[in-house]
Amino acid sequence: MRHLLASAKRKIYPVNPTVSEVLGIAAYDSVVDIPGSIDLAVIAVSASRVPMVIRECVQKGVKAAVIVSGGFAETGEQGGKLETDLVKVARQGGIRFIGPNSMGHADTSSQLSTLAWTWEITPGPVGLISQSGNYGHRIIHSGLISGIGFSKFISTGNEADLHLEDYLEYLAQDENTKIITAYIEGLREGRRFFQLAKETTVRKPIVVIKAGVTKESAKAVRFHTGTSAGSDAVYTTAFRQAGVLRVDDDDELCDVVTALLYQPLPRNNRIGILTIGGGLGVVAAEACEREGLEIAPLAPSTVEKLDACLPPRWSHGNPVDMAGISMAENPAIFSSLWALMEDENVDAVLLQAPLGAGNKRLSSMFNSGEIRAFRQAEESNLSLVSQRVREQGKPVFMVKPAVEFATDPEASSLFRKKGIPVYPGPRRAARVLNHLAWYRRYLDAAER
Amino acid sequence: MRHLLASAKRKIYPVNPTVSEVLGIAAYDSVVDIPGSIDLAVIAVSASRVPMVIRECVQKGVKAAVIVSGGFAETGEQGGKLETDLVKVARQGGIRFIGPNSMGHADTSSQLSTLAWTWEITPGPVGLISQSGNYGHRIIHSGLISGIGFSKFISTGNEADLHLEDYLEYLAQDENTKIITAYIEGLREGRRFFQLAKETTVRKPIVVIKAGVTKESAKAVRFHTGTSAGSDAVYTTAFRQAGVLRVDDDDELCDVVTALLYQPLPRNNRIGILTIGGGLGVVAAEACEREGLEIAPLAPSTVEKLDACLPPRWSHGNPVDMAGISMAENPAIFSSLWALMEDENVDAVLLQAPLGAGNKRLSSMFNSGEIRAFRQAEESNLSLVSQRVREQGKPVFMVKPAVEFATDPEASSLFRKKGIPVYPGPRRAARVLNHLAWYRRYLDAAER
Repeated sequence: MRHLLASAKRKIYPVNPTVSEVLGIAAYDSVVDIPGSIDLAVIAVSASRVPMVIRECVQKGVKAAVIVSGGFAETGEQGGKLETDLVKVARQGGIRFIGPNSMGHADTSSQLSTLAWTWEITPGPVGLISQSGNYGHRIIHSGLISGIGFSKFISTGNEADLHLEDYLEYLAQDENTKIITAYIEGLREGRRFFQLAKETTVRKPIVVIKAGVTKESAKAVRFHTGTSAGSDAVYTTAFRQAGVLRVDDDDELCDVVTALLYQPLPRNNRIGILTIGGGLGVVAAEACEREGLEIAPLAPSTVEKLDACLPPRWSHGNPVDMAGISMAENPAIFSSLWALMEDENVDAVLLQAPLGAGNKRLSSMFNSGEIRAFRQAEESNLSLVSQRVREQGKPVFMVKPAVEFATDPEASSLFRKKGIPVYPGPRRAARVLNHLAWYRRYLDAAER
Repeated sequence: MRHLLASAKRKIYPVNPTVSEVLGIAAYDSVVDIPGSIDLAVIAVSASRVPMVIRECVQKGVKAAVIVSGGFAETGEQGGKLETDLVKVARQGGIRFIGPNSMGHADTSSQLSTLAWTWEITPGPVGLISQSGNYGHRIIHSGLISGIGFSKFISTGNEADLHLEDYLEYLAQDENTKIITAYIEGLREGRRFFQLAKETTVRKPIVVIKAGVTKESAKAVRFHTGTSAGSDAVYTTAFRQAGVLRVDDDDELCDVVTALLYQPLPRNNRIGILTIGGGLGVVAAEACEREGLEIAPLAPSTVEKLDACLPPRWSHGNPVDMAGISMAENPAIFSSLWALMEDENVDAVLLQAPLGAGNKRLSSMFNSGEIRAFRQAEESNLSLVSQRVREQGKPVFMVKPAVEFATDPEASSLFRKKGIPVYPGPRRAARVLNHLAWYRRYLDAAER
């Protein structure tokens, strides 16, 4: 209720027969006692009382509800019966509802939130449908810190009335939602999901976590929401045929969404790797190959260009080890990067080199004026790279250890501002690039 | 030289015929002109001059050198010849050396560093041998931020004289080194490594990254250090037979080292999962199974204990979903944790629940006195858990998103101080637990 009051645009009527007011606002004994008309009922009473409250809502002419209360089908047979009753009452009365056992929902554009979370969700282009309130919470939290904003969030709960597929259909045509994400344990309308997804992904990416793949996690799904996790092979095939990007967890989801927001799709999966050290290149190449990318063979003209700007001890192949050249004095990093981006064999570049003025550790600069100069150089260098990415339509991903961002939060927001996704290790970057390359191939095939 | 001067315990003689002083200290034209006796020569002249400098060192009676200079075998045939000459001169003169093409080395206990890095390495029990200077740099940087201290670091370079195996033999008997770590591209004395490792791992863990597993990364290894990455199957078998823990990258290396430092080894791989939400449990169970752990079936007595302290809607199985109970008012999280730790079927516990006073977001508390109260409660709760871990010899791992630590660096150091490793996601925690369980089984078998 605090959240709802914070937006201050709506009339809120607390209903609670045991108190006279809630947060300073007069409370009503029953929904039917409310003087004005009601657009949405948010129900958080004990399970056994929910059907009664819904009846009152029907009487009052309410058309929509969010049922936060738990204690229904997820708890066993008796709760299941209660849920069946609830659906019957709502259907007869023409009420559609989210839940029960939902954590609530949020719409950042109209500033409506029925969530009990104490923090705000930053508005943005990503819609999220989650079959777990807690996991949805985790995704949104990870997303916000990664700089991702959200349009709508729905914690679907038991889906006794509205199903995940209904929310998907809605987000597919929602103008504020450019990317749809979902945490799925089990689908109630698999065929409808497949059709909707197939129609949607050609113009709007869908990124999902489908949990319950392993034996015990599938058991846990049954305990959690009472649904069946289903055959993973069927889900896998359906997702691939419908152009749905499937990820493993919240980190990978945020990684992919960030790339989709900021970078062009690579034409294919042939990667160029640019590093300041041999070992970094070895580990990056290994990570890329493990994730299904190809290490691009360099065109002879690219080797010539690199010969012209790098010291003779450079690796003469991909991964391109610039052999320790330092940024501060040497523009070779840009010449090398442009050379890789111009290579017809290279679909995307993984960059593992400092983009600031020199590779001095930030930690040694704190409390000195140097840090400002470093930041300025880094910012203008990032702008240069960002411009090339747009011009050439070829993605550039940076790899920087998470630890650097942990000690220097300013850095990550600067990179984001310039549209260059930064990943803590080569494996996470490679995985995202593989998703993007696959999606591009899917879209190309769908167009033909 | 700045580093060497900073420790201020040694006599440093700069040698450079083109200047009269370096950092205010009189420079000599040649090693032979130095008045005192020399314990260690640090050589960073161009490759072609290195044999000459080594000759001067022989004349002066120097017995040890670090050769930072590059331009030897790693650059091709001509450099290879130069390296052969260098080794001949050194052998004849009785000089042992690190490198060439080494980034230097460091010993934190005697405060000796020949590295050019601008930051200090915190002393600690971890030794690191790296066949890549840059990757070693990355490991140490990741380690320091994760709270890991180092005893010795050696960037082995081309290993023209001293081999990785020599450093391993040394660290195996070094009292300041409790855990040995290494970044390996290719071994020159595989059989010796295997023997040394086998003798060492029964009392001191060895954790390695072996790079060059994939086709193109193996090629990159040849470019980088001129060694062969070898057959990965042979390495894999040898590592397993010698009790060597093999990890993929710097993050996993730090994850494993942190666990080895702070936690007992689990007797086996049967995990108990404790969460505040169903979806979190589903994803955690999936991650554990994917990494090879078993989801422990709960003993009937454990179910009874959990029935007694949790709301009736708890999951009644493993993963244990506490169904949203909030820490602030409810000691059930501890009762549940103790119950899982006491279960004979459970070898380790994965905890995904807030240990502070309530699960209010820290972000909503900044600038208020609440944060201090939260911290105090968290600290005393962590001490309780930590004590139980020691008493029962059963590890407890926490899962918290990296993003929380990114916004609240104080938290990670508090958890570390209390000896509870915290991982950003269940998959990383599960992977570490699988390594630890494997190592325990190896040790048990070795004892018999």
